[in-house]
Amino acid sequence: MTWQEKAAGKRARLAALIPHDLKLPTLPGPDVLDVTTYPLDSVLSPRDLEITDTADVAVLLERMSTGVWTATEVTSAYYKRALVAHQLVNCLTEIFIDQAMVRAKELDEHFKSTGKTVGPLHGLPISLKDQIDVKGVELTMGYVGWIGNVSKENSVCAQLLLDQGAVLYVRTNIPQALMFGESRNNVFGTTSNPFNRNLTCGGSSGGEGALIALKGSPLGVGSDLGGSIRVPAAFQGLYGLRGSYHRVPYAGSTNSMEGQEAIPSVLGPISCSVGGLKIFMKAMADAQPWDADPLALRLPWNEGAYRLGDHGGEGGRLCFAVLWDDGRCKPMPPYARALRETKAALEAAGHTVIDWVPYESETGGKLLGDIYNADGGHDISLACALSGEPRMGWILDEHAKHLSTYEYWQLCRAKNAFTKKHLEHWVNTVSATGTGRPVDAIIVPAGSTAPQPHGKAQYIYYTAFANLCDYVASVFPVTACDPAVDAQLPAHAFRSEADRMVYEMYEPETYRGAPISLQCVGRKGEEEAVIRMTEIIDAALKTKTKK
Amino acid sequence: MTWQEKAAGKRARLAALIPHDLKLPTLPGPDVLDVTTYPLDSVLSPRDLEITDTADVAVLLERMSTGVWTATEVTSAYYKRALVAHQLVNCLTEIFIDQAMVRAKELDEHFKSTGKTVGPLHGLPISLKDQIDVKGVELTMGYVGWIGNVSKENSVCAQLLLDQGAVLYVRTNIPQALMFGESRNNVFGTTSNPFNRNLTCGGSSGGEGALIALKGSPLGVGSDLGGSIRVPAAFQGLYGLRGSYHRVPYAGSTNSMEGQEAIPSVLGPISCSVGGLKIFMKAMADAQPWDADPLALRLPWNEGAYRLGDHGGEGGRLCFAVLWDDGRCKPMPPYARALRETKAALEAAGHTVIDWVPYESETGGKLLGDIYNADGGHDISLACALSGEPRMGWILDEHAKHLSTYEYWQLCRAKNAFTKKHLEHWVNTVSATGTGRPVDAIIVPAGSTAPQPHGKAQYIYYTAFANLCDYVASVFPVTACDPAVDAQLPAHAFRSEADRMVYEMYEPETYRGAPISLQCVGRKGEEEAVIRMTEIIDAALKTKTKK
Repeated sequence: MTWQEKAAGKRARLAALIPHDLKLPTLPGPDVLDVTTYPLDSVLSPRDLEITDTADVAVLLERMSTGVWTATEVTSAYYKRALVAHQLVNCLTEIFIDQAMVRAKELDEHFKSTGKTVGPLHGLPISLKDQIDVKGVELTMGYVGWIGNVSKENSVCAQLLLDQGAVLYVRTNIPQALMFGESRNNVFGTTSNPFNRNLTCGGSSGGEGALIALKGSPLGVGSDLGGSIRVPAAFQGLYGLRGSYHRVPYAGSTNSMEGQEAIPSVLGPISCSVGGLKIFMKAMADAQPWDADPLALRLPWNEGAYRLGDHGGEGGRLCFAVLWDDGRCKPMPPYARALRETKAALEAAGHTVIDWVPYESETGGKLLGDIYNADGGHDISLACALSGEPRMGWILDEHAKHLSTYEYWQLCRAKNAFTKKHLEHWVNTVSATGTGRPVDAIIVPAGSTAPQPHGKAQYIYYTAFANLCDYVASVFPVTACDPAVDAQLPAHAFRSEADRMVYEMYEPETYRGAPISLQCVGRKGEEEAVIRMTEIIDAALKTKTKK
Repeated sequence: MTWQEKAAGKRARLAALIPHDLKLPTLPGPDVLDVTTYPLDSVLSPRDLEITDTADVAVLLERMSTGVWTATEVTSAYYKRALVAHQLVNCLTEIFIDQAMVRAKELDEHFKSTGKTVGPLHGLPISLKDQIDVKGVELTMGYVGWIGNVSKENSVCAQLLLDQGAVLYVRTNIPQALMFGESRNNVFGTTSNPFNRNLTCGGSSGGEGALIALKGSPLGVGSDLGGSIRVPAAFQGLYGLRGSYHRVPYAGSTNSMEGQEAIPSVLGPISCSVGGLKIFMKAMADAQPWDADPLALRLPWNEGAYRLGDHGGEGGRLCFAVLWDDGRCKPMPPYARALRETKAALEAAGHTVIDWVPYESETGGKLLGDIYNADGGHDISLACALSGEPRMGWILDEHAKHLSTYEYWQLCRAKNAFTKKHLEHWVNTVSATGTGRPVDAIIVPAGSTAPQPHGKAQYIYYTAFANLCDYVASVFPVTACDPAVDAQLPAHAFRSEADRMVYEMYEPETYRGAPISLQCVGRKGEEEAVIRMTEIIDAALKTKTKK
């Protein structure tokens, strides 16, 4: 069998898992770009729609914990909508709804017999990026050569989610090797952006972004090595969180370039509601991942930190700093508008907003690229060689030199010297904030580009600097591209090839309606505080919109 | 100049820093093995002796914070005794007492004018391993090629110690590249064990061990990559602590094989009193190292954890497990006696003591060795090549292959798989403890050998498994080798070359009077709980001795 035949076989098996009664009678034609409003009432009941239209994860949980909805009907509603979403944007890689329904029934029986929930995530359907192992479910991570690879054990993440009451039911699409900001591979093809199918859903957790935007999941788990949670969250107008290294347990999940620990990839949530971020992180921390993952930090949920104990306390005046341009690559025009709107909203809410002075983006970006490419692509080449499938993507350099261990150590050393300087740069802002503290968080574009047309590259340092420095970074939605106000600007003096590329890629009509999101970036280990600050920013933006 | 001439020049400059009035009129002859009781009254005043004989760091601090002693007189007493210690066992590498006395005077003036201490370490002289940078002080780390290298900035560790009120005054000897368990290099030569100068002080923080044992310092900072804090603490009957990765800030200090982050070396305290461990760790955590070190964890001192919140609470029954033999290499006979005595003391204090089942020591030991040797010794070869000095030591393999980055990543991956299994092994002890918790801590020999004669190798896995798994491990003294009771045993079936080596190295008379110490090993991130449990064990041993 050729690799193409193997991949086609896998896709056919996946398609066969969609029951006949969940197949859309007519699929939207290629001219239908926005499928978020595509009518679903031919396959979903009003009850299914009511459940899955719930915009707040806390409300979903509350309805199940009070017996208003059962886990079975919530699971059923979400898996149906997930299978429909897949027909619209090609977002799924694995479907295991039989396992999910058995699990949901167990939860309902427990609730019926004890009157109690199993845990804080009781009944919540949670979708998973196609690298988080679930016992008995095939895991290909988009590699043709991995077709047939069935996980023997739950990853720690999957197990702890189950322990806390969650229901696992689908996994979602990713780019080859998880190593570029789209979601396209030789097994499952390309996932599209539900708001405009000519555009990418982003990546690498792009299937999650597309699925959650289409309400096929209220909360998903992605991973982030350079923006892989945040880019898809941003490109679909969702909320996402990249916590610090080893806060959410990674053990037992699969990854590309495993053993690369200079910049560890982290798992984290993407959700339709900002509350979803807190619910996930709190449930995960309270599940004591350090009992199962040897690298997980012994850090229970810290309510004092969430109450902004290190930031003047709840209700105090915060000082944010805005990163308008990192000095290397100007973000597309809608980002400047989103930053202005957010700054105004925060000021209206009584906070201070100053400018963030970018710190050596070129040096930081080069360090990231060199570390990503340190094995000269050997890991990915081996995985592709299993089937003969071609390599794809635009982050890894096919001509990168395979470094020796000593050379790799020098990179790690340079990284630590750089991040020390970056931290000093942050701490030194204490003189400019007026709060007696350094900047509480940085407001940063979630990328240089709006969700771009398929097959185009991005400049990733707006998200990736947080991976390099291990800063905690959330994504929150602000606006959408509007050709009426987001006109192209006159060309500026380009500081890099990426600067030119991003400038030339912008053409307002192409991006009409595409979500534009920002990041709230806090210091290493500040998951709780960043979630709270994201809630504060989100509330400020919503208050301003209402006025 | 040859490397020998350069090294001799450096040693001469160091010797010249010892004032004439601090030179011992007669040095003990080579037949004087135990120099801990060598008379010092020819160079130290009764007041100097009274101060430096203070066995408890808390008492020292209390006397300064209440004005009984000044920082100046305490600093002066300790530096004098340090310079004397150096004449007995060759433990120092850098002497910067002028800087120290300026600092001490500042502290005294602050105290005099405000009535307050500068911080929790007010006036405490702290010695540093020869890798912790102090601004303006030469740092060679024992490499001839680094002679003349003066630090431009304080390391974060040194700076935070100063911020907390400490006085820095000397640095101490180490093995070449910090990579074997003695303290010998081509610049400074060999440091001896003050209890028996035919024996090693251990390493790599061996100068610290020897200096503190001779009361030339109440507390020192070492580093630990395989036992380098614990071995010298153990070999001198002191207390030491290896915390988890990134709890004590390493940034700005120098290291060999920098960039090796698979098993990060950690800094930590060695002290004459168990209280010194807490004082150091609390002061360091409360100094917020995360504001200066990009890898430091945001973890203030956790008093609840110190009160054993995760171990049944203060005053509860604990369950310890004893590691008698790791299945690869039998410790020398005095260790079995020390373990028996400690088990009996803990049982007498109402705690439970079960046996620890060793977990795949051969696999773990091989992973450690492979990671240490991953660069094929390139880092060390480059440092030696600067001067032409020869390599030395017995941990790094001169014929090790220099791995590619991909090969190195596979090692890191194997390490994470192994430590996950090791953690499961620990967590599964819950069924055997009777407390409802897994084993609270493991009691482990601090090495396979008692402090061995100079130039002999050790088997290091008794300490190094904690580095591999990132377990927190303290050292506490138990007894001393006593030929009357610690007879050689009949040969057993050797499980490894190390097993034979350690067996054949034992001959009771050689080790007469040598300190024998054990470790208290807790889980990753349990610095506070391990310190408390060490205090509990120490008290139990002292109670038993009194009876």
